Amino acid sequence: MFQTFDDLSDPSCGAPHAALLRSELKRLALDGFLIPRADAHQGEYVPAADCRLEWLTGFSGSAGMAAVLGEEAAVFVDGRYTIQVREQVDMAVFPARHLINEPVTDWLAARLKSGQRLGIDAMLHTVREVRRLRKVCEDAGAELVLLDDNPVDAVWVDRPEPPLGAVTLHPLDKAGLASKSKLADIRKAISDKKADACVLTQPDSIAWLFNIRGSDVPHAPLPLSFAIVPAEDKPSLFIDGRKLSNSVRDGLSGLTGLADPSELKPALNALGAAGKTVLIDPALAGEGIAAAIRDAGGTLVEGSDPVLLPKAVKNSVEIQGARAAQLRDAVAYAKFLCWFDEVAPSGDLDEIGAAEKLEQFRLETGVLKDISFDTISGAGPNGAICHYRVTRSSNLKIPAGKPYLIDSGAQYEDGTTDITRTLAVGEMTAGMKRHYTLVLKGHIAISTARFPEGTTGAQLDTLARIDLWKAGLDFDHGTGHGVGSYLSVHEGPQRIAKTGATPLKPGMILSNEPGYYPAGEYGIRLENLELVTQAQAVEGGERPMLGFETLTLAPFDLRLVDTTLLTEAERCWLNDYHKRVAETVGPLLDDKTWKWLENATAAV
Amino acid sequence: MFQTFDDLSDPSCGAPHAALLRSELKRLALDGFLIPRADAHQGEYVPAADCRLEWLTGFSGSAGMAAVLGEEAAVFVDGRYTIQVREQVDMAVFPARHLINEPVTDWLAARLKSGQRLGIDAMLHTVREVRRLRKVCEDAGAELVLLDDNPVDAVWVDRPEPPLGAVTLHPLDKAGLASKSKLADIRKAISDKKADACVLTQPDSIAWLFNIRGSDVPHAPLPLSFAIVPAEDKPSLFIDGRKLSNSVRDGLSGLTGLADPSELKPALNALGAAGKTVLIDPALAGEGIAAAIRDAGGTLVEGSDPVLLPKAVKNSVEIQGARAAQLRDAVAYAKFLCWFDEVAPSGDLDEIGAAEKLEQFRLETGVLKDISFDTISGAGPNGAICHYRVTRSSNLKIPAGKPYLIDSGAQYEDGTTDITRTLAVGEMTAGMKRHYTLVLKGHIAISTARFPEGTTGAQLDTLARIDLWKAGLDFDHGTGHGVGSYLSVHEGPQRIAKTGATPLKPGMILSNEPGYYPAGEYGIRLENLELVTQAQAVEGGERPMLGFETLTLAPFDLRLVDTTLLTEAERCWLNDYHKRVAETVGPLLDDKTWKWLENATAAV
Repeated sequence: MFQTFDDLSDPSCGAPHAALLRSELKRLALDGFLIPRADAHQGEYVPAADCRLEWLTGFSGSAGMAAVLGEEAAVFVDGRYTIQVREQVDMAVFPARHLINEPVTDWLAARLKSGQRLGIDAMLHTVREVRRLRKVCEDAGAELVLLDDNPVDAVWVDRPEPPLGAVTLHPLDKAGLASKSKLADIRKAISDKKADACVLTQPDSIAWLFNIRGSDVPHAPLPLSFAIVPAEDKPSLFIDGRKLSNSVRDGLSGLTGLADPSELKPALNALGAAGKTVLIDPALAGEGIAAAIRDAGGTLVEGSDPVLLPKAVKNSVEIQGARAAQLRDAVAYAKFLCWFDEVAPSGDLDEIGAAEKLEQFRLETGVLKDISFDTISGAGPNGAICHYRVTRSSNLKIPAGKPYLIDSGAQYEDGTTDITRTLAVGEMTAGMKRHYTLVLKGHIAISTARFPEGTTGAQLDTLARIDLWKAGLDFDHGTGHGVGSYLSVHEGPQRIAKTGATPLKPGMILSNEPGYYPAGEYGIRLENLELVTQAQAVEGGERPMLGFETLTLAPFDLRLVDTTLLTEAERCWLNDYHKRVAETVGPLLDDKTWKWLENATAAV
Repeated sequence: MFQTFDDLSDPSCGAPHAALLRSELKRLALDGFLIPRADAHQGEYVPAADCRLEWLTGFSGSAGMAAVLGEEAAVFVDGRYTIQVREQVDMAVFPARHLINEPVTDWLAARLKSGQRLGIDAMLHTVREVRRLRKVCEDAGAELVLLDDNPVDAVWVDRPEPPLGAVTLHPLDKAGLASKSKLADIRKAISDKKADACVLTQPDSIAWLFNIRGSDVPHAPLPLSFAIVPAEDKPSLFIDGRKLSNSVRDGLSGLTGLADPSELKPALNALGAAGKTVLIDPALAGEGIAAAIRDAGGTLVEGSDPVLLPKAVKNSVEIQGARAAQLRDAVAYAKFLCWFDEVAPSGDLDEIGAAEKLEQFRLETGVLKDISFDTISGAGPNGAICHYRVTRSSNLKIPAGKPYLIDSGAQYEDGTTDITRTLAVGEMTAGMKRHYTLVLKGHIAISTARFPEGTTGAQLDTLARIDLWKAGLDFDHGTGHGVGSYLSVHEGPQRIAKTGATPLKPGMILSNEPGYYPAGEYGIRLENLELVTQAQAVEGGERPMLGFETLTLAPFDLRLVDTTLLTEAERCWLNDYHKRVAETVGPLLDDKTWKWLENATAAV
């Protein structure tokens, strides 16, 4: 099993660990210290060795920060985690605050005193973040102290070793483009920025660029590492050599120099000392990276990680891979849905049982590399918690009479999947059907959208919401995120959300997942992955348009659809989509599942 | 008549005027000079005395700039004016470039030489613009020279005098809020920005704040003037005293000090010398304003003009006024539409004739203060030019078999109107009806939208386009602009457009005007004004929503509607709207017009 359901943490660690940390701060003559959830790669998943926030406070969410001063401390989490943080953290030691509305900078501004020294681990805070922290310290007359060694590590007795996950070469028939060719494009992008080199800090950028995959963190095949890519010369990849087999080492050595992570800072110093101009992404690179270049005399140019956009635009081989991965995943998913309909009515099935069974069906494909994130298996009220992670203690039986929400995905070598369905268990009320259908209308509006080149995800987001808005309803998350190609299931810069400022380009893959969550009742979310394509020209059309090809192939639960609320065009879309699911997935199913699917995709 | 149809300009002025300007630049030891269309108030309408760009080049559009160097010159205009500029300007003297895609900064960067001196009139370029110009000069090793006197004025022999339009007091039963109360709010906004004072450079901000109206420029009742508003003390209004009657002077003197415009710079210097912190809007204030404060030792805080937002959110009296103005305008408009249907089929009516007649019907209300902009009266292919202004030489007969577009508005003391209708003349083809109906669907989508507090115009813009996009069509302008209350017909910060970043608030008035323009054929645009309101709660709704109340009351031309393309909800909206028009406007009409309206608003 790739997913565990253990209760991850224990609030009682807060008091003793805060005391340990404070004693170390005293030794270092520091008046305070910040403990972000991030590691030096700012990724969604961090290895156990870098779960300092969890060690200190107990909080295991995917974003957050703690601040520790001499007498006071606090933990900062966003809206997704306001309930979870109170269960996991001792509020007497670390009172919780809202990461966005009550930011750490405000908290510090109200407490820092002139002459005080606030420490941070310079590799864990981005250049942009440090700019804000520096301003707070300056305004208070305090000093921001950039540390090379993290004080938490000094007092964390049984801190796990950093991971040594094996690296594999990502074959050309999956990657679609040779690393040499990718490197040529990236070098040109670096030159265009008038830079001599670029520092890559994102493991997925590095994985894409060098056509490798890793196994350092759960659910995303990332090789934790750094790279320096010069505009003119051979790149350098900073990675623990123990992750590399001889054949992987051979494969890489034609492309890049290989060095130990401990050599990164000397290499950055050398770039600086040689007076080079270096491109860094201020939203991603740690201040420690920037400082090592700047302090040695180098010049920094700030700009987006140049790999982000080319990585987001999938090539034709990756697109073929995505289609194959989705079809394979759809077979497993149809088996799961068929099984669910058989078992769920008994009332004995629980959230963990459902998640385990889905993982088992995916394992049976024989090529599952991992799940792409911990399955969100939400019965009744748990479904209304958007980022719910089921544990043995939260685990609910799936009750009849409430919709059940399951959001899951798979990592295959040819593609990453992510799908959410909301399923009827027993009789559904008219209100539930209305809510489901309003969400489905939003989903269809995105799926059928056409839009000119240059359109951003922000411009499309409203299409998913307008029918909910007209009903006085809404959902508090973006409509869609970018998805990697056997990489992270959440990938930028593309997204469908109020903040989605990147124009969508053919080849990008995005989720389409509107929802509605009546608190304490149930959750509804309907998610397919969509590929941005050149839309077929229509009669009388004058301008080329982009559109979406739906990649995910699984029926929507017709028992929750109120067809009287659908327009004729929406009804046709639903029937066409179901016909496609039946025709493509059907032939790959056993008889029993096929009978189930045939019924589930009947025209309405 | 408020509108003239004369051909405004003559390309032959370019060569001699450029020669005159160059001789003056030589005298001033300048190597170049920029001539923007703007005056010191950055408004859409400028008085004749400030039409320097038109004097120099012949170009009379509402935005643009010329650059003159020793040997070379160019004129920069945006996409609306690419045809017009070639008719009005001698391309041998002033080659045309695209203001946005080929900006003046690029043109200068390619030509400026080290040691050269580029002059600008410091009052005509905003702080933000000067920042960009300064960078270009620095990069080239050239010097940006800020001039107090404009070299054009020195050589413009028969330059008109600055306007001395009479100022009137805007009565409380129209303004709805006493100036004292508005001033208190603005003072608080200035304090909140930690500023000691604010400089207002926008005549409509000043008009709103002091409850006055002016008559210095066509079509907008603006008093050209500046104001300094201190956070604690009495404001100062810098306005030519000859614009003020004794009674207006009396009315104003309780609110504000009055000073001559020539005293503005000394007053700014005095603020600076006293070490004050002064709020300016860098997108609106001339660099001359900022420099006068900064150079004297003051501190600048940059932020939006604090009047913009309160002015945009109309109070209940202004809203009542808007409704009354719209109803009055609707009576005139119904008469125009009825007359048009009678006259147009003959084939003798031309664009000017239609515009004149519409203005006449509005004049017959007895309270028309002005039209709110030059009527866009576009027959056939002229309708496809979005910002077409008919002149005696462009004037076309309105042909049968093509839709006719007319975009017009009125200034009444209680409100400003702006309406576009596209009218059938003779038989319309299925294609024309399809295009009209697609635009109408976009119009209805905006009109029926509901959205949560915080939603911006950018988030709504796509609703007006999605049906056109699905047909491979689009329009190249925003969907809607803000509208003032007996002020400018184009008012910020609210707008429905890709760039509309301001959250919509109850009380804002916006146009809703999607369109479609097959070049060389005809233009379609359908425009109503919409008031942002708190939407009525719907059954089962959980969150408060905002919505629109349509203010404009005029039928859409049913001869151009293909009802088979409308959804049931759209058809109902159209019928409900027409019923409302008939019920509210009908009782105010003469018999003939009522018979026409009854037919025009029949249910479909």
